[in-house]
Amino acid sequence: MKTIVIHEVGPRDGLQIEKSVIPTATKIAWVETLIGSGVDVVQLGSFVNPERVPQMADTEQLFLHFTAPGRTRSHAAFSALVLNEKGLDRGFACGVDYFCMGVSASDTHSRKNTGMSTDEALNRITAMAKRASAEGAKVQVSVQSAFGCGYEGRVPPKNVLRIVGRYLDAGLTMISLADTAGHADPSQVEDLFGTIHDLAPNVVSACHFHDTYGLALANCYAAFRAGVTSFDSAVAGLGGCPFTAVSGGNVATEDLVHMLQRMDLRHDINLDALTAAAKKAEEFLGRALPGKIHVTGPVPELAPV
Amino acid sequence: MKTIVIHEVGPRDGLQIEKSVIPTATKIAWVETLIGSGVDVVQLGSFVNPERVPQMADTEQLFLHFTAPGRTRSHAAFSALVLNEKGLDRGFACGVDYFCMGVSASDTHSRKNTGMSTDEALNRITAMAKRASAEGAKVQVSVQSAFGCGYEGRVPPKNVLRIVGRYLDAGLTMISLADTAGHADPSQVEDLFGTIHDLAPNVVSACHFHDTYGLALANCYAAFRAGVTSFDSAVAGLGGCPFTAVSGGNVATEDLVHMLQRMDLRHDINLDALTAAAKKAEEFLGRALPGKIHVTGPVPELAPV
Repeated sequence: MKTIVIHEVGPRDGLQIEKSVIPTATKIAWVETLIGSGVDVVQLGSFVNPERVPQMADTEQLFLHFTAPGRTRSHAAFSALVLNEKGLDRGFACGVDYFCMGVSASDTHSRKNTGMSTDEALNRITAMAKRASAEGAKVQVSVQSAFGCGYEGRVPPKNVLRIVGRYLDAGLTMISLADTAGHADPSQVEDLFGTIHDLAPNVVSACHFHDTYGLALANCYAAFRAGVTSFDSAVAGLGGCPFTAVSGGNVATEDLVHMLQRMDLRHDINLDALTAAAKKAEEFLGRALPGKIHVTGPVPELAPV
Repeated sequence: MKTIVIHEVGPRDGLQIEKSVIPTATKIAWVETLIGSGVDVVQLGSFVNPERVPQMADTEQLFLHFTAPGRTRSHAAFSALVLNEKGLDRGFACGVDYFCMGVSASDTHSRKNTGMSTDEALNRITAMAKRASAEGAKVQVSVQSAFGCGYEGRVPPKNVLRIVGRYLDAGLTMISLADTAGHADPSQVEDLFGTIHDLAPNVVSACHFHDTYGLALANCYAAFRAGVTSFDSAVAGLGGCPFTAVSGGNVATEDLVHMLQRMDLRHDINLDALTAAAKKAEEFLGRALPGKIHVTGPVPELAPV
């Protein structure tokens, strides 16, 4: 059994903020490259209003393509983000069996993002997650803005632990902490995940870091130290807003996998394929992207003399 | 007593590989800004052959300027790198009281860099360090290529521990491990420093990381976790070769200090002054430099609502 899971979120968290809508055929070819690299899960999209987020309008099509009956299934799993019951219905209708959903620990962020307070959103998401689990799907529930928030600043750990407690009460044990604004520091990451694992050793924890302030890889290492086993990342460091000084892309999949391979983990993942996927993304978006290893290549493997 | 020491090496490790020679007056104004930030030690230069490394030819002048008798000494200490006895003589002649010197754990790197095997260099450096200590100077001895080497690949820990053992036998306890090629990964960093601290609890350890493969901040965190207390860094991420795809600058001082401040350490250091110093370096070198926080600014400090 693999001890570390790479959850590629580029096709969702990477593309959702892009100005341009990437054609479905381009996405399919790109996702094929991502799958070919050997990453474990690819998040294909989210079931949101296609008029508000046209970048995600083809999410059904992608699931139908990659999970069609009769198609030889690859090793990879495919996940989708859902925000509400309607999204969950749409997901089930096209065969999704792995759902991600979450609540912001920052009340201000929650209200701005969903129109609901954290508590209202928590009631709704918990009910959705229980329903999806009962129908046999894999469900990962997350706490967004788990470390810091652009509106509220530092987020107190107790606010996060309260949400985690509610998830656990509902029997939900795949739990992700997301650093939506890129504010997390590695001490904070190690402390908060450490506390959760101490309180609930049955939790299968995941992390989601943005590199807004250059701390994403350090935070991934801290999460690893604390026993986190699932890592969200986006190839080439996609995500965040490309039009501001403070670029907040996800941790780059190729940089994360390179670090893990230097740590003697996940040698089964093909870094060349990730580099190819990063370069494809640079090509279809028409600009350089922040990931490092797709530019430098990995540390050369030399036989000691 | 400060638990974490920031050792700014930009004026030495940052400038020594630049094509252009920065005028002494420009360096002085820049170092004043660096001192003003509150970093603990500034490495002003190295005593090497001025014909081979003209960028370091004014090292005496810088020491005479910053450590002149009668000048009000700032909080900051000033260090110099020395490679041989002649350099040590030059250092003493201009009042240096803090010397850094080292040996490469990679025999190939040592021979290419110094014309000596690791063992020959070790004999020489150990004798120099003993002499400098006996004359009352502070001495930090380092192991270069302590994690990996562009010629030899992974460097076995036992090769590093052998050199550290020789330093300890000579009574030298300020010991730095340098990741010259940027190959280190955080697990390796934590393991190796952990082993050293277990073997020799009296060691005051320092680290020196290059960001060639994006791992410098993660490695700094790993070193911190292992109990390292002194961190080399160069403002703006100066250093390495700016003319290759694989840019290997030092960890950027502003990025390191920002991470430490997020970890509730070293709030006394002025990040604005470091940002100003980074921008000055971009100005006198005429190009953008790799550090991140001097571009993004720090995570905004907001009062929780």
